[in-house]
Amino acid sequence: MENNQIYDLIIIGGGPAGITAGIYAGRQNLKTLLITKDFGGQLSKKTIDIENYPGFEKISGIDLGSKLRNHLKKFDVEVKLEEVVKLEKKEDQFLVHLKEGGEFQSLTVIIASGADPRPLEVEGEKEFLGRGVSYCAVCDGNFFKDKIVAVVGGGNAGFETAIFLSKIAKKIYILEYGEKVKADQTNQKIVKNSGKTEIIANAQVKKIAGDNVVKSIIYLDRKTQEEKELQVDGVFIQIGNQPATSFVKDLADFNERDEIIVEFETCQTKTKGLFAAGDCNAGPFKQIITACGEGAKSALAAFQYIQKLKSQKLD
Amino acid sequence: MENNQIYDLIIIGGGPAGITAGIYAGRQNLKTLLITKDFGGQLSKKTIDIENYPGFEKISGIDLGSKLRNHLKKFDVEVKLEEVVKLEKKEDQFLVHLKEGGEFQSLTVIIASGADPRPLEVEGEKEFLGRGVSYCAVCDGNFFKDKIVAVVGGGNAGFETAIFLSKIAKKIYILEYGEKVKADQTNQKIVKNSGKTEIIANAQVKKIAGDNVVKSIIYLDRKTQEEKELQVDGVFIQIGNQPATSFVKDLADFNERDEIIVEFETCQTKTKGLFAAGDCNAGPFKQIITACGEGAKSALAAFQYIQKLKSQKLD
Repeated sequence: MENNQIYDLIIIGGGPAGITAGIYAGRQNLKTLLITKDFGGQLSKKTIDIENYPGFEKISGIDLGSKLRNHLKKFDVEVKLEEVVKLEKKEDQFLVHLKEGGEFQSLTVIIASGADPRPLEVEGEKEFLGRGVSYCAVCDGNFFKDKIVAVVGGGNAGFETAIFLSKIAKKIYILEYGEKVKADQTNQKIVKNSGKTEIIANAQVKKIAGDNVVKSIIYLDRKTQEEKELQVDGVFIQIGNQPATSFVKDLADFNERDEIIVEFETCQTKTKGLFAAGDCNAGPFKQIITACGEGAKSALAAFQYIQKLKSQKLD
Repeated sequence: MENNQIYDLIIIGGGPAGITAGIYAGRQNLKTLLITKDFGGQLSKKTIDIENYPGFEKISGIDLGSKLRNHLKKFDVEVKLEEVVKLEKKEDQFLVHLKEGGEFQSLTVIIASGADPRPLEVEGEKEFLGRGVSYCAVCDGNFFKDKIVAVVGGGNAGFETAIFLSKIAKKIYILEYGEKVKADQTNQKIVKNSGKTEIIANAQVKKIAGDNVVKSIIYLDRKTQEEKELQVDGVFIQIGNQPATSFVKDLADFNERDEIIVEFETCQTKTKGLFAAGDCNAGPFKQIITACGEGAKSALAAFQYIQKLKSQKLD
């Protein structure tokens, strides 16, 4: 393979982090390839307007996704709509393998493959998405002012969601599958002190029901084997995320949620020249604007790394 | 002082980082006060359009600043146009002292005070400030219609200032201390094509001279060791920025550039509950989008800190 076929940078993912990395790489004249299954990431799945991307008081996920994609088009960044299945490093070069076959070489890689909320996989979940079912309280919580909501999941994410919602909603149920909730003591204390939240353990969610919008959640009490129904206006599912990082393997370290561990000043992983930006990394705050900021940081850090690499080779 | 007069969060600064922190704090229902001398930060001084804030392909600094400010107005965040001169922590509370007298109490503080232009520190610089010496071409450029100006600094900021002034001034000198200018190739090309700009490398500025107003700039040619004088009507100083962090004192650690050292996952300083976002911290990449991302992270981290603090007090 000839030298001019080696990319400076391959970006994996076409959500806010990947697109911002592409914009910055383009501005730095890096020879860049962006590989993504589709554009927009979680933006394109949002059915409720975004109100927390600074500069746009209110914008749909689809519209923001289009704006970001159009912005990227102004720069000389190659795009392939493919899926990455394997990532390797050989000496100074990364090898990026595609699902449909073929591979690309690059000096640096930014993983911006995002994460999807782990679904409950129960009846009504898909049907009522955006009509009462949500995976993100920061995004959608404000729509449930003085309403009754259920949070599915008794881990920290579920409790933090309940804490967030306690300032907005009238009443919150936390439904936990196991015998005991798993959230840390501090979160449990805060939830208790809010006085608004009822915890239901041993609850196996069976169905989310309603008409146009969510009206109730039906669960099996695993102790009594009784089926019970709660009248709720919203259901927040917080049973974890599944970051799309399986192709990375041993080039990075992962936390217990399969999120890539990075050094947040530059978003670099344990492997030099390999970065992870946005929801696929271990950052605690999964926001569009934080993903964009990390995309920019990782592209600028990749640029610096490439400069050093090339100058070393000239020595 | 009564308890209801203690803020959850005080944000110091009204640029991209501070405004984004305000948007996120507002969304979290934190009782928030934003203190700033003026809004927009460095956005209001930008000489060329911004093309790297994702979502806006091309937007003036003034316009992006307005959009951010209008976005903030949608949230319940109190604003005071004042200057902070001192920050203290007493037990769990921060005390924020204003220049005009008065102080405010808060459980958390986000420093987003940005950076000010770095002065040359030569004779005549302070004396002729506003009478020929300027740090901001957008603010003062129009006073130099068909005049001769010097821009001190051969980085991107200096070149962008020269590009901006080439539409106004008759002749522009760029004085660079080093042997080579550091601006990127695109900016160098635009400057060259303007036909109005002369680049002088190895120039160590010694003095800005005049009577009522600037008449000349005197520099040492570092190669020949000759002292030279250029007849100019204005001097624009563009040699970088210095963080506006003098009020912080020993609550934070600083690097050699007086930038606040933070842990970049949350932007927290060495003092719990005290955060620093954007150009005032030690981050290597000073971009609008990275400042916004850090503003969001610090506000969400402040929220978590406050929740824990309040729950501990209930024990």
